[in-house]
Amino acid sequence: MSLPPSLPPEFHDIAKRVNNWGRWGRGDEIGTLNLITDEVVREAVRTVVSGQRVPLALDLKQDGVQTGMIPGRVNPLHVMIQINQELFGPGTVATSDDAVTFGLQAATHWDALTHVSHSGKIYNGRPAATITPHGRSGFSGIHTARHLVSRGVLLDVASAKGLDRLPGDHAVTPEDLDEAAEYGRVTVRAGDIVLVRTGQMRAYLAGDRHGYAFPSPGLSIRTPEWFHARDVAAVANDTLTFEIFPPEIENLWLPVHALDLVEMGMLQGQNWNLESLSTACAQSGRYAFLLSAMPEPFVGGTGTPVAPVALL
Amino acid sequence: MSLPPSLPPEFHDIAKRVNNWGRWGRGDEIGTLNLITDEVVREAVRTVVSGQRVPLALDLKQDGVQTGMIPGRVNPLHVMIQINQELFGPGTVATSDDAVTFGLQAATHWDALTHVSHSGKIYNGRPAATITPHGRSGFSGIHTARHLVSRGVLLDVASAKGLDRLPGDHAVTPEDLDEAAEYGRVTVRAGDIVLVRTGQMRAYLAGDRHGYAFPSPGLSIRTPEWFHARDVAAVANDTLTFEIFPPEIENLWLPVHALDLVEMGMLQGQNWNLESLSTACAQSGRYAFLLSAMPEPFVGGTGTPVAPVALL
Amino acid sequence: MSLPPSLPPEFHDIAKRVNNWGRWGRGDEIGTLNLITDEVVREAVRTVVSGQRVPLALDLKQDGVQTGMIPGRVNPLHVMIQINQELFGPGTVATSDDAVTFGLQAATHWDALTHVSHSGKIYNGRPAATITPHGRSGFSGIHTARHLVSRGVLLDVASAKGLDRLPGDHAVTPEDLDEAAEYGRVTVRAGDIVLVRTGQMRAYLAGDRHGYAFPSPGLSIRTPEWFHARDVAAVANDTLTFEIFPPEIENLWLPVHALDLVEMGMLQGQNWNLESLSTACAQSGRYAFLLSAMPEPFVGGTGTPVAPVALL
Amino acid sequence: MSLPPSLPPEFHDIAKRVNNWGRWGRGDEIGTLNLITDEVVREAVRTVVSGQRVPLALDLKQDGVQTGMIPGRVNPLHVMIQINQELFGPGTVATSDDAVTFGLQAATHWDALTHVSHSGKIYNGRPAATITPHGRSGFSGIHTARHLVSRGVLLDVASAKGLDRLPGDHAVTPEDLDEAAEYGRVTVRAGDIVLVRTGQMRAYLAGDRHGYAFPSPGLSIRTPEWFHARDVAAVANDTLTFEIFPPEIENLWLPVHALDLVEMGMLQGQNWNLESLSTACAQSGRYAFLLSAMPEPFVGGTGTPVAPVALL
Repeated sequence: MSLPPSLPPEFHDIAKRVNNWGRWGRGDEIGTLNLITDEVVREAVRTVVSGQRVPLALDLKQDGVQTGMIPGRVNPLHVMIQINQELFGPGTVATSDDAVTFGLQAATHWDALTHVSHSGKIYNGRPAATITPHGRSGFSGIHTARHLVSRGVLLDVASAKGLDRLPGDHAVTPEDLDEAAEYGRVTVRAGDIVLVRTGQMRAYLAGDRHGYAFPSPGLSIRTPEWFHARDVAAVANDTLTFEIFPPEIENLWLPVHALDLVEMGMLQGQNWNLESLSTACAQSGRYAFLLSAMPEPFVGGTGTPVAPVALL
Repeated sequence: MSLPPSLPPEFHDIAKRVNNWGRWGRGDEIGTLNLITDEVVREAVRTVVSGQRVPLALDLKQDGVQTGMIPGRVNPLHVMIQINQELFGPGTVATSDDAVTFGLQAATHWDALTHVSHSGKIYNGRPAATITPHGRSGFSGIHTARHLVSRGVLLDVASAKGLDRLPGDHAVTPEDLDEAAEYGRVTVRAGDIVLVRTGQMRAYLAGDRHGYAFPSPGLSIRTPEWFHARDVAAVANDTLTFEIFPPEIENLWLPVHALDLVEMGMLQGQNWNLESLSTACAQSGRYAFLLSAMPEPFVGGTGTPVAPVALL
Repeated sequence: MSLPPSLPPEFHDIAKRVNNWGRWGRGDEIGTLNLITDEVVREAVRTVVSGQRVPLALDLKQDGVQTGMIPGRVNPLHVMIQINQELFGPGTVATSDDAVTFGLQAATHWDALTHVSHSGKIYNGRPAATITPHGRSGFSGIHTARHLVSRGVLLDVASAKGLDRLPGDHAVTPEDLDEAAEYGRVTVRAGDIVLVRTGQMRAYLAGDRHGYAFPSPGLSIRTPEWFHARDVAAVANDTLTFEIFPPEIENLWLPVHALDLVEMGMLQGQNWNLESLSTACAQSGRYAFLLSAMPEPFVGGTGTPVAPVALL
Repeated sequence: MSLPPSLPPEFHDIAKRVNNWGRWGRGDEIGTLNLITDEVVREAVRTVVSGQRVPLALDLKQDGVQTGMIPGRVNPLHVMIQINQELFGPGTVATSDDAVTFGLQAATHWDALTHVSHSGKIYNGRPAATITPHGRSGFSGIHTARHLVSRGVLLDVASAKGLDRLPGDHAVTPEDLDEAAEYGRVTVRAGDIVLVRTGQMRAYLAGDRHGYAFPSPGLSIRTPEWFHARDVAAVANDTLTFEIFPPEIENLWLPVHALDLVEMGMLQGQNWNLESLSTACAQSGRYAFLLSAMPEPFVGGTGTPVAPVALL
């Protein structure tokens, strides 16, 4: 792995410590999802007490979270291709059909491991050039991440601090995660999917798309080691950029993406609406649950919309 | 409700018997999904024994199940909008992004209740004109069906008959459903999501898209009463058209769609890949499981791609 | 024709005077384009002196003139589907391909006659319901307007007044058009395509998309009679909305659209870049030229991108 | 320029003879379009006698010429985003809007010079890597080819041979072009846009899309030298692949594309409907005319839909 000058030594130091390349074989495509075993799922099922279902996806609509800041990552353009069309003649049963165009990372989504590269590599040391214009590289496309059900844990960092929403310049640290785990009386375990709530989604839900996007609290460059130490399977939160934005360290952009996706091989989720879940967990006193968050299997996708649901 | 001459009396007789309009209030938008209670979910969770996760979605790709027979219902056009782009300058962390255009009913999907109208009405007696060119009518759009987790039951009609795949002219009858339930030693209950396997998907998986599309086995016009009697929440199967196609009764097209979606208010799923599930159920001897099949919440969508997963 | 209360009598008075329904037969689909005869084209050809070609289309790109104000009228999302792909094996000739999603009225475009209806009617008295969700109604779709070449005349209203750009609240009147014709020493004739320059495009070209959109100078409700009296074939200008916006008469929105497209059956063009043409006409002293502005023949399109060219 | 083994010596021999790299400067982006001077346009204008306008574009529609053979090059998906929507309240003027998704090379189109590369180079010796995933490389994108009006010449190869349509295995040779020029009593000159008619379009117009696609007559590898000798500005024809397909020389795929686009820097047009033009030229006895064929200026486009028109 060549070290370009622009990624500083401190990045590479952490990278070495969280690196999972080869851990599940040189041909592995799913990284930390390997940590979700049948046993983990069985344990996750046991967390369900009330049967309450809490959906975590934002509405998919043209005035969604995207503001045009990221060219091409367009909000859904949803259009009708048939309306009450009597396909087989007048008076017959009529159908309505629709189609959509949108960026796979436009709304509530998972990043695929291929979403990010650094120093010419993607996860497991594969060359970044594996990703082709067709996006149909088999390797680590989102269609390979087909089993995203596990125990979910909400780390409600904002509530643990008695806040509705973290300030825009707040980098969520390992200490914050510990504090939130203690607040929820939950221990993060191998194979868990961790949901980190900052409260930032409140800006979007209140109609402030630009305030939601930037500046935004998010995960600190110090968190990948915390997740790595606990063998977390995946992490999602309620922000546009996942990590604090603008970044903690000047000119070091998207380091958490690079550490999580490239080095650890750990999926990240963004734009998850954790507001109802926060309420449900507070009311039940339970911060662990069964989480189903299946990717739409776009072959070669570097991301996917997802409609996660928590069963409490 | 006016009765146009082209829908015959036998259709209207059944329609009266399965009609649920007003059952959950005049403003209800989700029909039989009301039958999935927290208690049903709790019971569903109890069916999980091994923790095995069986995904049921087809790959989303340009050479998917659509053949052009239904204008506008296009297979996914998946394109890259960034490839390893160093957004913040040379040597920085690089990202890849993608976008997609496709018909919401193109692959493994749920029909929304608004997908079908007859005699000028959609579910709950609302005027068909509720569906606008924008598709953004709030009423009964797929975004209202946000809690699609329940007990799933596989009725493996093909296997119950010792067949890999039902013949193309086989209408699946109530008797067939009974036979399959007995084969799986399972009793269909209120709130269940029933998956009916015909084996037709084998044609597609073997590369024969046209043979998959037509002619196709599928549900008989007699099945809506069976589902209604058991208060089933939703039904999905492994065919393109859901019901037998071409239809049982000459010139009576899509009667099952009209009865299920319009009269009962019961969601239908199509193009579900039930092959692995068939194997898993046979091996475990258990034909009931926890099923998560969350719609992507396209506002006003008359359908949605779905990536269902069965937990056994 | 029923008269809904919201369109005031003054609108209907003008409507009667400019109405062309039935003038070219009840089945006519192209309205004033009938006025472009072979003789008109021959005369247009004679205006060409230097052979200079002046293109009038804006670049098609994602940060184009649309700002999201009109839902669904999206700027072009242009994506690569192949990049230097060696289709027939390594070392063979390689191809690059691309695709695009965009609103047909997003950039430099023609409105089809079907773009607007009022009082339940489109051009020639056809019911507005002629326009179906598929957009594939044959009647008056943009694909029927296949011969858009004629004499073009630039009425440079801004320059005639010694201005770079008209104020945002300036309604271009018949008197302004007369003044500009005199300024260009040109007489508008039957079959001409008239280009009206306000200079508003300068805002967009200077990077101010919102200032370009609104408020904007544009054609007055009094201009349709001026065009009708001269039997103009089509009119285009350099603004987003064509007519003055917000409108001259409170709560009377888009009256010029309704008069031009519905009553007269005269095509309108918007977002035409007339800046270079203004310079070329001023330099040559000739304000009439051969204009080719062929629609892309989208079947049933209610508009079309166009790349017009003036030959001077 | 490295010579990969798969492009044979005979290709490279021709390549050297037709190469125009550097002819109009190292920074040139438009190749042989430089040959269309104002004088050429003035001469072209003089060919117009009757004022007849003959449009040459195919309808843009979902069942267009593409059959799925080229992944991603999709026929237009044309959808309505508004239908008679009374934007400003009940009873106000109503608008209909539409949007489209399609491959830029899907129907009647120009290839941009960037559409093809060989041996790692595009036109003028630029690296093929100039073409990025965004397609927004400035260099030689179709938006740079903004002045496509010139003298058009129809070489009606099929009619010259007394045929409606050339056989599928007929490679159009320089001798065929000479024969057709003699048949039309026309001399091809510098700056001309040459339209070569094979009659193959008749298959598509008769409903046989697959027969249209393949096998197809088309230009021989020997024709680039013929065009080069005459300093032709651009060439279009009435086939899907432009050149004979499958190719004349085994395993030498798309050599004409590579010679025309990469070596000469000469635009190619495909899927042009030359049937009406053939009739008009035969009736008038004139095979030269004014041709306007303006690209839609998609920034960085490797192709563009075009609606050409011939003025006779």
